[in-house]
Amino acid sequence: MKAVGIVVEYNPFHNGHLFQVNQAKKITGAEVVVAIMSGTFLQRGEPAIISKWYRTKMALLSGVDLVIELPYCYSAQKAELFANGAISLLSEIGVDFLNFGSESGDIQEFLQFVTFMNKHQTEFDQFVQANMKLGYSYPRAASAAFTQLHTSSTALSLTEPNNILGFHYVKAIADQKCTIKPTTTLRKAAQYHDEDIREGTIASATSIRKLLTSNQLEESKHVMPEPSYQLLKNYQETYSLFHTWEEYYPLLQYKLLSTPVNELRSIYECEEGLEYRLKEASKKADSFHDWMNLVKTKRYTWTRLQRVSTHIVTNTTKIEMNEALNTKPNYLRLLGMTEKGQAYLNKTRKRRTLPIRKPAKVEGIMTELEERAANVYLSILPSHTRTAEMKKEATRSPIRL
Amino acid sequence: MKAVGIVVEYNPFHNGHLFQVNQAKKITGAEVVVAIMSGTFLQRGEPAIISKWYRTKMALLSGVDLVIELPYCYSAQKAELFANGAISLLSEIGVDFLNFGSESGDIQEFLQFVTFMNKHQTEFDQFVQANMKLGYSYPRAASAAFTQLHTSSTALSLTEPNNILGFHYVKAIADQKCTIKPTTTLRKAAQYHDEDIREGTIASATSIRKLLTSNQLEESKHVMPEPSYQLLKNYQETYSLFHTWEEYYPLLQYKLLSTPVNELRSIYECEEGLEYRLKEASKKADSFHDWMNLVKTKRYTWTRLQRVSTHIVTNTTKIEMNEALNTKPNYLRLLGMTEKGQAYLNKTRKRRTLPIRKPAKVEGIMTELEERAANVYLSILPSHTRTAEMKKEATRSPIRL
Repeated sequence: MKAVGIVVEYNPFHNGHLFQVNQAKKITGAEVVVAIMSGTFLQRGEPAIISKWYRTKMALLSGVDLVIELPYCYSAQKAELFANGAISLLSEIGVDFLNFGSESGDIQEFLQFVTFMNKHQTEFDQFVQANMKLGYSYPRAASAAFTQLHTSSTALSLTEPNNILGFHYVKAIADQKCTIKPTTTLRKAAQYHDEDIREGTIASATSIRKLLTSNQLEESKHVMPEPSYQLLKNYQETYSLFHTWEEYYPLLQYKLLSTPVNELRSIYECEEGLEYRLKEASKKADSFHDWMNLVKTKRYTWTRLQRVSTHIVTNTTKIEMNEALNTKPNYLRLLGMTEKGQAYLNKTRKRRTLPIRKPAKVEGIMTELEERAANVYLSILPSHTRTAEMKKEATRSPIRL
Repeated sequence: MKAVGIVVEYNPFHNGHLFQVNQAKKITGAEVVVAIMSGTFLQRGEPAIISKWYRTKMALLSGVDLVIELPYCYSAQKAELFANGAISLLSEIGVDFLNFGSESGDIQEFLQFVTFMNKHQTEFDQFVQANMKLGYSYPRAASAAFTQLHTSSTALSLTEPNNILGFHYVKAIADQKCTIKPTTTLRKAAQYHDEDIREGTIASATSIRKLLTSNQLEESKHVMPEPSYQLLKNYQETYSLFHTWEEYYPLLQYKLLSTPVNELRSIYECEEGLEYRLKEASKKADSFHDWMNLVKTKRYTWTRLQRVSTHIVTNTTKIEMNEALNTKPNYLRLLGMTEKGQAYLNKTRKRRTLPIRKPAKVEGIMTELEERAANVYLSILPSHTRTAEMKKEATRSPIRL
């Protein structure tokens, strides 16, 4: 019983994701699809538009067999740490393959580039440092460093976001010496930053979220599987909102205004005097969008600033995050499974090196951060559902389908 | 030009307050009434029902000539520190008299009791400590200590809240060796905890707030001066709310859930393992009322717990508060003045030992706490007014009437 692992956010699950799930099985011949999914706050530093439970159900209803949560300490992180965390979980589960979507679509390009980079890491780091000293953000500095390294030796374009993530997955597999075999699927139709729904039936998650938050849910119906659409509709009816930064801005603003700068400085990724800038802007901006426009500079990408905002609103300090990153995960949180997924878990019990647990049953820094992120994520729900959701979060059983 | 000082919260200003303002002038013969008024969070650990600016206007329109803000480090405090702070400001201004409402109504009782207590302070403290070891809250322990001290030598009843405050005013005047002459006015009709509006035209602030928060503003019309009623109505129309703990509960809950217990422990008045109790309750309670019912015990009075909640929501640490309490105020914040009040300020300029300043022009721990408390107080306003109000708060000129 072979399994293919995928790393997902499903924010929300749409036809592009369905395409990838099917391709992953087809390319690898695996029977079982295991998804590592971010729970609350995502790689680009955004809250997931709906809860992990609804997104899990979407996945299970569209071909995924197991959904395992990617802990907070990996989920709201730059590509390298995000990929490392996700691969380490897939390795613990013992999947046979990895599949990821990319703009390249050719796994050889990734493998070659990882080999190349492993030989030139020091030079690369020096180029990045030098570029950052010139005032470039990390992604731009890294992108320029690739060019400076004469990457004409590879065809892989590292200005594409999914190629970058893919590179880090393949590199993590090499670094962690996993036996997972990486594969890639060419991303179809919609590009990541494309914000207009196409004529066709594949659209980017960004464009779909735009429809949701502008009260045009109906218009996203043709670009996602029917269960995804129904679950989105049901979520809005049940909780009266979608989770966006605008909904969290009152908490972020409150947190910034009630926290002295020397305390803000202890927050993860809050570096280089950023605390003053963030705090001052919170006195002026009425909305998250205005606040971001006040704080952004050439040096900080939108994504980086959103991640700092995430760590501020979850009150995650440098000390806590470093402790979590230096601690090996001691459990897997299973969010959901199909019957086939359950059969796979039973058959591979001995291969698995970590127990499946609910956070309520586990101690340690990682679950502490999980609980906090989950509570903060739920804090914006209407009062009649908020506390009830918080109460059951850490003890909730996986969804079975 | 003689002045009488009063210490007020005006939460909101009603006929009982009007009665006291007039009595204060009548008893002392003073022409000018100077009110020291709490700005955002009050002595019983509650947010003021409407802003300091609206309450200042109410006061000026009903016979008060000057309104000076009582800083946060004194305003949300037990009677002794509250009284000490208020008297120190009145002393800096140089008023001739103090007037306060009391259940006793006889200033001799207060003067005698202060003399008595100054002789028996050590014994009294010992009784209080012993009673608290038995599990009593501070107010109950102090009340029993008075009886244990054979206070039959005085007629002053120290189970009455306004007598307790009055005692601390008179004691502060003695301790600070001020030249202010204390006077008292017998409180008429409504008792402090009385929650039903009487047939007459005097009702307690508590009963009025109950009407306001149950959408029965109209029914409070006959128990307050017309300007107070109009200002309350206008506040609700402008900001769509009154400031109650229920409005702040989402922030308090968020703060408790996002803060590790060892960090909560650094908050002022968060003692004796209370942090665990407060945090656990925040995972269960949907409302402030439910939360308070979960956290209260024989040991902690409702008021004490509300004050802890205030310091948690404003993120005020023990270190910060102690620094503020050990720092002499270095400015007076004038919230409003009538023409007569302004004339008084001009005539007494040389007598005054502190400058009148806006917080934006002053540095130091006291203004830092002021700014933070003000921003937190304003955090619950609707987004279209919140930031605008925050922006002008620290630079706002006094109201002139």
